[in-house]
Amino acid sequence: MKVNRGRVVAPDCAAARRRPTDAHAQRHATMDDDQDAYEEALHLAEVVETFRKYARLAMNELQRHANHFKALPDKYRRLLPDVPRYHKEGLDRVVLNQKFIDVIVNASASAFQSNAAAVDPGKVVAVTPANFEKIKSTLRQFVREWSADGADERGQSYGRLLQTLGDLFPADKCDRGQIRVLTPGSGLGRLTWEVARLGFMSEGNEFSYFMLIGSHFMLNCYPADRPALDLYPYVSQTTNVVSQADRLRRFQVPDVHPASTPISGSMSMVAGDFLEVYTDDVDGFDAIVTCFFIDTAHNIVQYIETIARILKPGGYWINLGPLLYHFSDTNELSIELSYEEVKALLPTFGLTMIDETLPVDCFYVGNARSMMQFLYKCAFFTCQKQSPMH
Amino acid sequence: MKVNRGRVVAPDCAAARRRPTDAHAQRHATMDDDQDAYEEALHLAEVVETFRKYARLAMNELQRHANHFKALPDKYRRLLPDVPRYHKEGLDRVVLNQKFIDVIVNASASAFQSNAAAVDPGKVVAVTPANFEKIKSTLRQFVREWSADGADERGQSYGRLLQTLGDLFPADKCDRGQIRVLTPGSGLGRLTWEVARLGFMSEGNEFSYFMLIGSHFMLNCYPADRPALDLYPYVSQTTNVVSQADRLRRFQVPDVHPASTPISGSMSMVAGDFLEVYTDDVDGFDAIVTCFFIDTAHNIVQYIETIARILKPGGYWINLGPLLYHFSDTNELSIELSYEEVKALLPTFGLTMIDETLPVDCFYVGNARSMMQFLYKCAFFTCQKQSPMH
Repeated sequence: MKVNRGRVVAPDCAAARRRPTDAHAQRHATMDDDQDAYEEALHLAEVVETFRKYARLAMNELQRHANHFKALPDKYRRLLPDVPRYHKEGLDRVVLNQKFIDVIVNASASAFQSNAAAVDPGKVVAVTPANFEKIKSTLRQFVREWSADGADERGQSYGRLLQTLGDLFPADKCDRGQIRVLTPGSGLGRLTWEVARLGFMSEGNEFSYFMLIGSHFMLNCYPADRPALDLYPYVSQTTNVVSQADRLRRFQVPDVHPASTPISGSMSMVAGDFLEVYTDDVDGFDAIVTCFFIDTAHNIVQYIETIARILKPGGYWINLGPLLYHFSDTNELSIELSYEEVKALLPTFGLTMIDETLPVDCFYVGNARSMMQFLYKCAFFTCQKQSPMH
Repeated sequence: MKVNRGRVVAPDCAAARRRPTDAHAQRHATMDDDQDAYEEALHLAEVVETFRKYARLAMNELQRHANHFKALPDKYRRLLPDVPRYHKEGLDRVVLNQKFIDVIVNASASAFQSNAAAVDPGKVVAVTPANFEKIKSTLRQFVREWSADGADERGQSYGRLLQTLGDLFPADKCDRGQIRVLTPGSGLGRLTWEVARLGFMSEGNEFSYFMLIGSHFMLNCYPADRPALDLYPYVSQTTNVVSQADRLRRFQVPDVHPASTPISGSMSMVAGDFLEVYTDDVDGFDAIVTCFFIDTAHNIVQYIETIARILKPGGYWINLGPLLYHFSDTNELSIELSYEEVKALLPTFGLTMIDETLPVDCFYVGNARSMMQFLYKCAFFTCQKQSPMH
């Protein structure tokens, strides 16, 4: 396995390692004709276009609030003299968010450019409300993964996972540089990077272009001498706000610079769908660490099957998360098992539960100052793949 | 003011007191032609029809999951032998929920029948997904307000509000029977009833037919000798489930029988929109208690203005809740102020903050066993209306 020790591998490079041609064009491995490559390219183009149009979309959204305010009778507007100023300050923050986005997209999107080549440059690509929501959630994800303000959330989840991983493979009793650890659903790459920082041979895997563009920038393109970037991820949140200062507050990204922070392990990132990327793998990993990941499955049984297959005998699966099934509100396939049903499946796939805590309270991409919080009562468990002799 | 001491007044009777004709037909007081009365009647007919069709809708929803399961390859289905049984048990619970609903609607909907008279009996009325969601949330609201399992949630919110109200009007220093207390947004009536139980002259106000039909049943139609009714409010929740037993679990309603539990105060319930019902009121109430209510406004300033107007000089407004503005995701008017902006408005309307706590942690209509919880960081405050001499 080719891994550049101590150096982050670009998503598309790592992907190329796993696929004869570009991994993203092959995300849907079973559909390998031109039409599917074109659709894949079009999806990337749509993501990039939505990034580019963020400010316009966010301003439209804020303008709707301004229009409601203008529609009020005079007697109410007079009582709220600061509203127009807060509106203007919101628009200013949106412009600064676009600057943040432009830095990322300019630096990172080119890594995926070959994927987009199939799209006619003259074609008008769609900017959908759903993709706009994903941009806003990507901005918040930067706070969770790469800001000092995300430290509490990271402690609740990554902290526990890394502690368990470290305890299973003590640095003084094994060569962590030979221990392969996979973090599927790696998002903006922080957990994958933290695993490498502990000295492991760390591999991330991510499907979403929103996350891939963000993680590629953070891991590969962030100059060591560049100061932190400013970000205002809550400017669009107008409900459950305690003060306008909360809504307009600034975050700084990153809290640590990956390019200038030495990691003792190695790291790579693989772009593509978890099930497809690892279709041909068997017994490859010493540990798989999943954080808020298993409920992204259409069929969670297939995820567990794959995890069990690609673990080495004796290897560990460490999981933390709820069961907020990703496709629950769609018309797509969605198998929604209870946690007890998930647990009951483990022995079938040769996995033995060795440690379990439920619930573990975690917030996930939450606004700490909001009057409404999503509190997850997570399942946190470690299971081990049996050796064939068992 | 006509109040039947110690006896709950039917929503429509109380409403008739406030309006020359039926209050609900007049909810939109500015549109008083036949067309509007017809639309109001049609809305009631739609609510009743959705109640009647609950089981069909809920079964369709569960069937979608069953169809996904059937679409799985054999090898996966064989691993999940209990899924068909849980599916069948879910359908059984849906039928039992329909029994619960039928008891309520048969007993209570007739109280609103005159409102529906304008609708041609042969007309096919709409059963919308939005109304189906409201039925499901009404079932959960029964757990919050009228089951022993809701006691924790009630303690977090009603407990604090009632304690404050009781402290402001000590039973040994005033005649609570002469103290008028309004609870707008009274839902299924529990808080309004608890205020009456403390000896006050308690008045509730509610707009939603889902809630009005439910509260009318609970307060006026529940026979003292009838055993508790069974309810399975989480049968439709297939995400964040720890065990199928949690999803299928039974709740019993009510925990106390209003008809057989003596209240020392008096109680009435007024149907209609808060702003319209109290349009002509001035200085009427000694206290207004709002719980998860003020963010239901299109224009929260108008709510505060109305609250201030209908309080007696020296009267108290006690509030607890977040600011999850109800019309935030719609195209309707929605003025979304921060909490600091709301506070800054109070003196303008002659209200003086005398006590404030933020945040107060509350859950609201939550499934205590779910792996995802909505945790509200509520504002809890008391303000007093200045006397004219100030």
